Amino acid sequence: MKKPIRSDIAWSNRERIVVRGKDLPGEIIGHLNLGDMAFLELTGRAPDAKESKVFNAMVVTLVEHGVTPSALVARLTYLGAPEAMQAAVAAGLCGLGSVFVGSTEGVARMLSEHSSVDSILKQYKKVPGLGHPLHKPTDPRTVRLFEIARETGFYGKFSTLMEELGKQTKLVVNATGAIGALSCELGLDWKAVRGLGVMARAVGLVGHILEESRQPMAEEVWLRTEEEASRHLKP
Amino acid sequence: MKKPIRSDIAWSNRERIVVRGKDLPGEIIGHLNLGDMAFLELTGRAPDAKESKVFNAMVVTLVEHGVTPSALVARLTYLGAPEAMQAAVAAGLCGLGSVFVGSTEGVARMLSEHSSVDSILKQYKKVPGLGHPLHKPTDPRTVRLFEIARETGFYGKFSTLMEELGKQTKLVVNATGAIGALSCELGLDWKAVRGLGVMARAVGLVGHILEESRQPMAEEVWLRTEEEASRHLKP
Amino acid sequence: MKKPIRSDIAWSNRERIVVRGKDLPGEIIGHLNLGDMAFLELTGRAPDAKESKVFNAMVVTLVEHGVTPSALVARLTYLGAPEAMQAAVAAGLCGLGSVFVGSTEGVARMLSEHSSVDSILKQYKKVPGLGHPLHKPTDPRTVRLFEIARETGFYGKFSTLMEELGKQTKLVVNATGAIGALSCELGLDWKAVRGLGVMARAVGLVGHILEESRQPMAEEVWLRTEEEASRHLKP
Amino acid sequence: MKKPIRSDIAWSNRERIVVRGKDLPGEIIGHLNLGDMAFLELTGRAPDAKESKVFNAMVVTLVEHGVTPSALVARLTYLGAPEAMQAAVAAGLCGLGSVFVGSTEGVARMLSEHSSVDSILKQYKKVPGLGHPLHKPTDPRTVRLFEIARETGFYGKFSTLMEELGKQTKLVVNATGAIGALSCELGLDWKAVRGLGVMARAVGLVGHILEESRQPMAEEVWLRTEEEASRHLKP
Repeated sequence: MKKPIRSDIAWSNRERIVVRGKDLPGEIIGHLNLGDMAFLELTGRAPDAKESKVFNAMVVTLVEHGVTPSALVARLTYLGAPEAMQAAVAAGLCGLGSVFVGSTEGVARMLSEHSSVDSILKQYKKVPGLGHPLHKPTDPRTVRLFEIARETGFYGKFSTLMEELGKQTKLVVNATGAIGALSCELGLDWKAVRGLGVMARAVGLVGHILEESRQPMAEEVWLRTEEEASRHLKP
Repeated sequence: MKKPIRSDIAWSNRERIVVRGKDLPGEIIGHLNLGDMAFLELTGRAPDAKESKVFNAMVVTLVEHGVTPSALVARLTYLGAPEAMQAAVAAGLCGLGSVFVGSTEGVARMLSEHSSVDSILKQYKKVPGLGHPLHKPTDPRTVRLFEIARETGFYGKFSTLMEELGKQTKLVVNATGAIGALSCELGLDWKAVRGLGVMARAVGLVGHILEESRQPMAEEVWLRTEEEASRHLKP
Repeated sequence: MKKPIRSDIAWSNRERIVVRGKDLPGEIIGHLNLGDMAFLELTGRAPDAKESKVFNAMVVTLVEHGVTPSALVARLTYLGAPEAMQAAVAAGLCGLGSVFVGSTEGVARMLSEHSSVDSILKQYKKVPGLGHPLHKPTDPRTVRLFEIARETGFYGKFSTLMEELGKQTKLVVNATGAIGALSCELGLDWKAVRGLGVMARAVGLVGHILEESRQPMAEEVWLRTEEEASRHLKP
Repeated sequence: MKKPIRSDIAWSNRERIVVRGKDLPGEIIGHLNLGDMAFLELTGRAPDAKESKVFNAMVVTLVEHGVTPSALVARLTYLGAPEAMQAAVAAGLCGLGSVFVGSTEGVARMLSEHSSVDSILKQYKKVPGLGHPLHKPTDPRTVRLFEIARETGFYGKFSTLMEELGKQTKLVVNATGAIGALSCELGLDWKAVRGLGVMARAVGLVGHILEESRQPMAEEVWLRTEEEASRHLKP
């Protein structure tokens, strides 16, 4: 009656530690960088040099966006529980949902389920990956990511379709649009694509927490907000 | 009365996005891998080739340990909220505390506050970074990490002290011991060192969630556990 | 240019602490129970005796379901970070999404947007709040909740509609169906309804963490799972 | 070789759901309020009327403190992931650590391990549960909680000791001091005491998220903070 419990990711015994079929000390440590390791986790194999270049470019783009809501969340959490910085990173990740980082997933799913501009515009009222409040008429990250894609031979049908969508809607292809398209070019499962932003932002949040420990802002943000928010209620 | 609110990490305007003084599209994307980007976040500068090799080796070591408690947590969380995979990663990170990944922090702090074996053994009943239930008499990750440290010129006083501690206590220097020591060699702030494991594990957890979406185990783990746990209560 | 920042929930000064217009020491502590306080938070006023009875019955129903995925998550997180039990509760809550507790929200939204069985069955392929793997042909919690609703005069059009849906689909109205309907009878905003399960489960998770500290299961669950999951990979 | 996996909290089958030996529909729903249910979770038995009064008073005190860091965290998280409000509550709980709510645990532990003012003052540089930035010379919550304790016969040696500590140090016994003392009077395990604040705050956070959905502040807090924090970096 029991169903099997099985994971193909890793195993270890006294002498060996093996991840995705590769010996951790012998074939991974010193051979793969952190982005390559993420690629190995998501695809089961190490990237070649071109894949490594494109994939690292994509995730590096998502690491840092300054004092975002998620950075503020991590800092405010660290204020209350400095002994548990992992919980501050975790709290910061909780908000990477439909509004912000989640749109990479939306793009990757859309491009893997549709193959024409018409089919997409018919179904989507709001096309994910298009438009940006600040970066227009072009998003410099997109320009750079597609440049790297062309250099490495990964600028293909998904990138073309994404840029065509931008032209027809007269909206900028933003960084999540480019990253969603390149995820498809690399053959990544769309279910893993939100994860690119999640892992990248975890890196950035550690940086914010370190800065918070040296040059805090969370308490001041809290006190100012509390004061203003309740001012109208006080006698 | 107000205190200033200030972050030196990043800024952007219509044309530019700058992280730690570097132009994101021009100097980061396509130039730094994900580990280098983490180094930039933690130190404010890009690593040179040797620093990049050591630092990437350290974080890559911490990405994947198979079906750990945190991987199980991420999978069980994904079972209930597949629409919010960021929350599954976040849940998985919450347990990276004093018992597991936190020991890298303990090692880095200890080595930055003490400079002799005697001083450490006097103060610590249980020295962090020593001992392993499975990998003995040597931890193959430690062997490899110190080998890379020697090749790149980063095997210095902290690594020596850590190995000396292992010899005197007759305990294996485990991977968190090596990583804590190398964090000190690289001049990282001990307050950021737990963050290495947190960011690395975020990468690994995305891999586990992707596998869970294709080859699930969480429901079976839950049902078996529930059944056994409550069997003695049932009529 | 700035928008106002404003909260009407609470304020305090040297002498007074006021929540939703009520003096905390004088009108809340000793007067409201924890369920009543939740009602105050969600509606801005204290419940009368009948509302208190129904509302407390609803949330109490959601506190404890034995060793659920979220209880396991809390226990496995506590294993790694016993010094941060708040993070263990937080991790346990992360999975209360679309699959489990979230269905109360789905029911409340459905009933507040539709007023007939036909309209619902036309739109929903799977009606939330119906069906249960174990409790059939009736869910004893639903029977009891609707009994209390009748006693207190809160069995109205939403409860009727929910039961009618059960009859026509020949599926049991489960506890989340009853609670979603009663949330509408009480005039709660459907956006807050998932929150009933979240707050209730937070109570239950503290219970599981306390039991885990005395009579642990997390490590055993982990070790068994790890062993079985990786057995096929080992030499 | 396997260790047993066992939980005594709850079980269910087709007809019955039993929590801590009590029939959920027959003995809990409609009989216990949410605070009583929490007491049942923590002690294994339902409270009598006096215990119910004291315990509900304690947890109700901890539900709401206005726009705290944890409320801000929940609101900022909801801004990014409104589809996953459970993750917003979870994020808000992550910061209830050593700095804020955690001090109840510190008080309960201290009072259960020491029985005299001298012994405590000798060991603690900073006594938990004493002092408040705003509420002095008395904390009105403490006054009220000890009043209820006296009425119900729960003002005993732990409360006396706590007030004696306040007198000798000339610091106010704050609400967490009173709640920690009363937890000991009720015989609660100090390991569960931080959980009182965690469950209470979960209730309050749902209130803040509901208000955020109607009258948002998170985006404005973020935009103001981001603008001020990076102003000095911009050209």
